Amino acid sequence: MYRTYNCGSLRMNHVGEEVILSGWVQATRQFGGLTFVDLRDRYGITQLVFNEEDDAELSKRATNLGREFVIKAQGQVRERSNKNPNRPTGDIEIEVTRLDVINPSKVPPFTIEDESDGGDDLRMKYRYLDMRRNPVKDKILFRSKVALEVRKYLTQEDFVEVETPCLIKSTPEGARDFVVPSRMNPGQFYALPQSPQTFKQILMVAGFDRYFQIVKCFRDEDLRADRQPEFTQIDCEMAFVTQDQILQTFEGLTRYLFREILQLELDEFPRMTFDEAISKYGSDKPDLRFDMIFNDLTTHAQGHGFQVFDQAEIVLGIVAEGQADHYSNKDINALTDWVRRPQIGAKGMVYVKWNADGSFKSSIGKFYSDETLEKWAIDCGAKKGDLLLILSGETDSTRKQMSELRLEMGRRLKLLDPKVFKPLWVIDFPLLEWDEESGRFHAMHHPFTSPKSTDISKMLTGDHETMKSLRADAYDLVINGVEIGGGSIRIHDRILQEKNFKLLGFSPEEAERQFGFLMGAFEYGAPPHGGIAFGFDRLCAVMKGSTSIRDFIAFPKNNMGRDMMIDAPSEIDEKQLQELSLRLRESS
Amino acid sequence: MYRTYNCGSLRMNHVGEEVILSGWVQATRQFGGLTFVDLRDRYGITQLVFNEEDDAELSKRATNLGREFVIKAQGQVRERSNKNPNRPTGDIEIEVTRLDVINPSKVPPFTIEDESDGGDDLRMKYRYLDMRRNPVKDKILFRSKVALEVRKYLTQEDFVEVETPCLIKSTPEGARDFVVPSRMNPGQFYALPQSPQTFKQILMVAGFDRYFQIVKCFRDEDLRADRQPEFTQIDCEMAFVTQDQILQTFEGLTRYLFREILQLELDEFPRMTFDEAISKYGSDKPDLRFDMIFNDLTTHAQGHGFQVFDQAEIVLGIVAEGQADHYSNKDINALTDWVRRPQIGAKGMVYVKWNADGSFKSSIGKFYSDETLEKWAIDCGAKKGDLLLILSGETDSTRKQMSELRLEMGRRLKLLDPKVFKPLWVIDFPLLEWDEESGRFHAMHHPFTSPKSTDISKMLTGDHETMKSLRADAYDLVINGVEIGGGSIRIHDRILQEKNFKLLGFSPEEAERQFGFLMGAFEYGAPPHGGIAFGFDRLCAVMKGSTSIRDFIAFPKNNMGRDMMIDAPSEIDEKQLQELSLRLRESS
Repeated sequence: MYRTYNCGSLRMNHVGEEVILSGWVQATRQFGGLTFVDLRDRYGITQLVFNEEDDAELSKRATNLGREFVIKAQGQVRERSNKNPNRPTGDIEIEVTRLDVINPSKVPPFTIEDESDGGDDLRMKYRYLDMRRNPVKDKILFRSKVALEVRKYLTQEDFVEVETPCLIKSTPEGARDFVVPSRMNPGQFYALPQSPQTFKQILMVAGFDRYFQIVKCFRDEDLRADRQPEFTQIDCEMAFVTQDQILQTFEGLTRYLFREILQLELDEFPRMTFDEAISKYGSDKPDLRFDMIFNDLTTHAQGHGFQVFDQAEIVLGIVAEGQADHYSNKDINALTDWVRRPQIGAKGMVYVKWNADGSFKSSIGKFYSDETLEKWAIDCGAKKGDLLLILSGETDSTRKQMSELRLEMGRRLKLLDPKVFKPLWVIDFPLLEWDEESGRFHAMHHPFTSPKSTDISKMLTGDHETMKSLRADAYDLVINGVEIGGGSIRIHDRILQEKNFKLLGFSPEEAERQFGFLMGAFEYGAPPHGGIAFGFDRLCAVMKGSTSIRDFIAFPKNNMGRDMMIDAPSEIDEKQLQELSLRLRESS
Repeated sequence: MYRTYNCGSLRMNHVGEEVILSGWVQATRQFGGLTFVDLRDRYGITQLVFNEEDDAELSKRATNLGREFVIKAQGQVRERSNKNPNRPTGDIEIEVTRLDVINPSKVPPFTIEDESDGGDDLRMKYRYLDMRRNPVKDKILFRSKVALEVRKYLTQEDFVEVETPCLIKSTPEGARDFVVPSRMNPGQFYALPQSPQTFKQILMVAGFDRYFQIVKCFRDEDLRADRQPEFTQIDCEMAFVTQDQILQTFEGLTRYLFREILQLELDEFPRMTFDEAISKYGSDKPDLRFDMIFNDLTTHAQGHGFQVFDQAEIVLGIVAEGQADHYSNKDINALTDWVRRPQIGAKGMVYVKWNADGSFKSSIGKFYSDETLEKWAIDCGAKKGDLLLILSGETDSTRKQMSELRLEMGRRLKLLDPKVFKPLWVIDFPLLEWDEESGRFHAMHHPFTSPKSTDISKMLTGDHETMKSLRADAYDLVINGVEIGGGSIRIHDRILQEKNFKLLGFSPEEAERQFGFLMGAFEYGAPPHGGIAFGFDRLCAVMKGSTSIRDFIAFPKNNMGRDMMIDAPSEIDEKQLQELSLRLRESS
């Protein structure tokens, strides 16, 4: 028997009881003849006390306990004279009469405290120690709780969790597959799924009606700061369903999660078309925690002799409220440098200060009268004391730059409150995206997305230009500027699916070889269907107001896709390669 | 709007209501001027009726509907004159006023009925059609329900679900790994986990205390009839725990599942040592639905001049109750042929009939008197009318043969009732298994299993022979002769783990390279811990009284590890191989 209670459960009503606790030594302190040991486990910390006068030998052993030793202590629960109101067990302590060291510990390479002194690499290598720290532990427990509530909600809504296979077929489409050589089928490979997309559609054809799965997905691509080669999705699909029913269902899920887990009641989620999001925020995932929408100043700005604006396709302004007085020339210069950084790529930035006294100051004052500037400011919804920031140039890139500037101003003005949640449905995405470089269309969502029903005939018969204008029943859920999930109504008709593959540059043979089973399934009574997938790691991070997903994953990989703790990937035996009918290529 | 109700929900209280239903055409029938359509979805079947007199054109369209067409029907609910008590919606029907064909269907390649005319390969290829059949659909829905209840129970018991990685490190130990080449780390490979064993132990070292996961595992081995290259485990681990607490917890889980899902109350699970199971049933997974335990007749049988028995290491007998009269010479001969098949491998079989009239008949009557045979029979617990079947030879192989014979007799005598469930804990497995062929020890469970605490000092200091006698805190849960799960108390001490690896033939360098992270973790305060893993596919199959796991998997692979629907594995591009720094070997 290692314990009768865990370290988080004892209260005043246990006083007098003989108990056994086991756990880790968080800290030891001495105070006169008393030795205090904070004993920790997943559930909390309980104070153990050893009195030299009662048992000098036992007390000595307690003082010799090192940090992170695993011990078992037996004794009586008693009321503390000096209570700790910040700790649920803070009213009591254990007067220890028996102590066993179950397992000693070397001195940990970093401190096991909320704020640790360990660097990233060290903490990744000793992940089992890092996970003993509350901030990491809490995130993993939080994730587990979110998963459970997701399952509860979706099950209540008649969704069935079905496991789809991990060993599937490689497709050249989209980001890169991890492949798995088959020993039994020499020269052939499985692929790990980037998503269970085709399987969930097959489940709809099979009549499962409402499917979900919390499922690992895989992508072998260069890892940006916050991507992982394996990640988890809440993957869902519904049959006989309209876009609106899907949005209602998953808005319901999201509100349920915030209510049950964060005790937060979210308002109804606004919906915004892709076009509106792009023109107002320059982004298909706008952060709505603050306004600062784009104002199109193009017509106002042109024809006054300022060549930069005259030659621009678009001139956009945003208003930084009350900042006219706070932004010195030096601040403006620093901000200009910021937008000029290669990551942002603007050529320059124009400012207009509408000072509190009503006067104007601007970097383009010699081209525009104060009256003109006032008209701009008023059109932008500004008032005295506000600062206008203006970017211009080619439409798409200027919008992107302005979107970055808007977010940067949000950060600088502390408008990105991590306790505030602003969800948004972005809808009516384009079906196809024209890629100048490769001279072909890409699927904006994926090749199984249906055009809007009103656009189907255009798609089947229209010319090349028409294709660019097609809109899809495709949608993203965005919270605080982070894309939480996305989905679409799918094609359920073979002819339309063949047309889509053709537009995307598939030969009929390629389409058949890769997706013949799905198009075949469409010929045997496929119901209309659609779905959505949430990035589960990211959902957890956003709910916790965190900008990184890494600590919401128990065993994350680093930027090189490497597990630092187990040291994977690694070389394998020549014998293993032989059995797989493979040979390594000489590195060139 | 595709539907206001699903096809399983309408009852008498809906009569008079205008409804819309969508689903698949199960069948159409005509009866006078009436056309009946059975409309099916996941939830049930609802009868649609079309009256030629009311709308001849609509009625004609209904008669033209093919099997598996997807349709939408609108109309009024009315009471049926000819009710169907076998169908929950059997009291009502829909008087259809509007019919839309959403998607037609080709004629399915096999019938979508409980009993289908499709062969295995055809049904695997058209899995989406096979899954529309109730027996397959029900198994997938059943699995989903079991998973949910597992999560409910374990969560209530403070277990946290933590996702462990799929891309891990290859280890030569045990069954074969699937490997995954890393594009970013040329020449290096991940492996897919055969189980999350080391990660769950790391989670215990990290302090998570109680972990579970319903998790995909992978094994690249030749597939026996009922194995799959990817399979699912209910994987669990607990810290500060004794074997007894683990057995209690998972006996609790199993009883909970049978109670909640099958409405069956299981008795407390008996426990039997490995040694007892082997000597009584010749198997570490005995089927306890019937007795027929082994009786050791060796001393009785030897010294009477019957050479076969005199030269045998062991002589074992089982009793087939009341079968003396029912087994003719021909039957006995057939049974003898059965045990002689190469899969069983017995050299012969001896029978003793204790006839109802008290006389004896036996194939070895000339060596043994009736008095001797009666003594045997009585020692075996037989009575008049019973049949004794006797095998002899080398101990291990005779026990295995007798175990097969016992099960075969169970089948022939219909003692394997699929509605009866007999769980059993088999405990005290040997720690190590000596393999004559390779001249080395294998881990009976796995290399992380702890010897019993009373055997630890023997293990650290004993000689080679002593090692064979070590017993482990290792246990299997067996239900009806099927191993549902197994687990053990783990080693949590570096020295002991090193010793175990050494016994298993690892060099210190190999052990360090493969499992250094785990042994390192043991030095930083590892708690005592242990766990268990249930085969989830198999648990579902056993609960449903099914002998095959395949239909409990939505998308199973065939015996060659091939997904017949998507046709995987398959060849990949030379370009993809290049990027992975791989080359195919010429097949030899």
